[in-house]
Amino acid sequence: VFRVCVPEVAISEAIEHAARVDVVLWPDGQPAPVSIEDVQLLVPPRRLAAMTTDELALMPRLEVIQLLTAGSDPWLGLAPQTVTLCSGQGIHGSSTAELAVAAVLHQIRDLARYERQQADRRWQPGERHSIAGSNVAVLGAGDIGGRVADVLTILGARVVVVSRTAREGILSPDEFRPLIAEQNVVVVATPLTAQTRGMVGKEFLAALPDQAVVVNVARGPIVDTNALLAELHSGRLSAALHVTDPEPLAGHPLWTAPNLLLTPHVGGGSMGWQQRAGALVQRQIGHLLRAEPLENVVG
Amino acid sequence: VFRVCVPEVAISEAIEHAARVDVVLWPDGQPAPVSIEDVQLLVPPRRLAAMTTDELALMPRLEVIQLLTAGSDPWLGLAPQTVTLCSGQGIHGSSTAELAVAAVLHQIRDLARYERQQADRRWQPGERHSIAGSNVAVLGAGDIGGRVADVLTILGARVVVVSRTAREGILSPDEFRPLIAEQNVVVVATPLTAQTRGMVGKEFLAALPDQAVVVNVARGPIVDTNALLAELHSGRLSAALHVTDPEPLAGHPLWTAPNLLLTPHVGGGSMGWQQRAGALVQRQIGHLLRAEPLENVVG
Repeated sequence: VFRVCVPEVAISEAIEHAARVDVVLWPDGQPAPVSIEDVQLLVPPRRLAAMTTDELALMPRLEVIQLLTAGSDPWLGLAPQTVTLCSGQGIHGSSTAELAVAAVLHQIRDLARYERQQADRRWQPGERHSIAGSNVAVLGAGDIGGRVADVLTILGARVVVVSRTAREGILSPDEFRPLIAEQNVVVVATPLTAQTRGMVGKEFLAALPDQAVVVNVARGPIVDTNALLAELHSGRLSAALHVTDPEPLAGHPLWTAPNLLLTPHVGGGSMGWQQRAGALVQRQIGHLLRAEPLENVVG
Repeated sequence: VFRVCVPEVAISEAIEHAARVDVVLWPDGQPAPVSIEDVQLLVPPRRLAAMTTDELALMPRLEVIQLLTAGSDPWLGLAPQTVTLCSGQGIHGSSTAELAVAAVLHQIRDLARYERQQADRRWQPGERHSIAGSNVAVLGAGDIGGRVADVLTILGARVVVVSRTAREGILSPDEFRPLIAEQNVVVVATPLTAQTRGMVGKEFLAALPDQAVVVNVARGPIVDTNALLAELHSGRLSAALHVTDPEPLAGHPLWTAPNLLLTPHVGGGSMGWQQRAGALVQRQIGHLLRAEPLENVVG
């Protein structure tokens, strides 16, 4: 019997339970289940940032940690060499890309202004910026960044995609640096690494043109919160954050910053994600049982 | 000399004034310029719904009325047979498509909920619907409808496009009718005609599933305002209207309807439209001077 541990009933239900597979549940905020010591594939609880090595030592038979998130930064280097770490890339990609597009359009078309007019019962058309004709930089060439770039191109934006290593159609950070001053929109969709931490900092933000929009759907620490706050308060830039640094926010100046749309890490949290997660776990089990390479291996 | 009359300096400036072309200005809300009697190509003031036949009689040399709007309904049949009526299709297409996408995503991801949480300083993730996995019907297969369909397909929606005449990949209204009950989103992007007036009426709306989203970027009277109001107040449907019936709104129940985003006919009103309008006028002048067929002829 192959033992799998997942954090939600809906994911468990999305896995077809073959005779050779046993699925146990470890819900968010609960202690580990009794049968944890037999677990071979672990899908950790969602709200668990990472595990301690002591906790991991409770699972001597563990072969795979399958994350539900596209990012895997807190887990890297944590598990013993015998354990393969796999990201949840693809589970939330389309949903996060769609929230990024929603946020870009919300900010560049200034929908909040129409919501205020609606509250005041004022019919007041006026000309606003549009994504058509805008320059957009997408930082990150993965599933999310690729979808955002495709969509905004169809809507008439001139899009550049930036990634660690330049390749056909993709700029390196060094190639991109001189172009920052031309970008009306920046979408952050790159993993958090030592290189990307603080990448969108004071200098980067200061180089953006007036009225530029910064959207972060990746990880909070890629954007320098204090530098962004200063630009928001000056009215020069606007932003949409699905992720923040710190996160979650409690009594933080971001709550009251002007020109900001805050969506509390809900990029991937759209209905149907459990089915996509279950399907991925199911495929990974198949790979293990057939001794095939796993998908989404990150460590 | 070929005489052109346009309503905005920015459009005039976007037309290259060849030696043979003379451009006069007729701004919104102003009386017709003195030289109106020589005008051969008229771009009417934007806020002018249509002209009277008396006003048109002031321009005995008029050959072409070039509208700035994609819709041309108030002008049809108004001018003498000798005058060609051309729509502004293409001037506002990308901009209107982008606002339609913004509105669809705003409503299906319930961004207003996060704006309320932000005002209350509440960090409260939660699962919402997404366009990925949703069924979307786009009514209208023109420039705007086509772009909306392409974008939402990339974002993972299952899209059907409906037009007067069925063709490859496009359903007729009769073919579409049995599918209304499956649509999570309906985007209205079809011209106002005798057939489309009231098309999204009480029966159509009642057939939609719970929590469906109706977005109208075409013309107000295609959607039955009272039937929509009833569905919004019951909480069953949500909507985004860029156009309304009546329009503009003054002291109307739509202002206070729940589950509604109102953007006061700003679909095409994004920066850069005057350049696109000027380019179209310039091309039309070229066609006239070279005795070629005009673009966007509607009557």
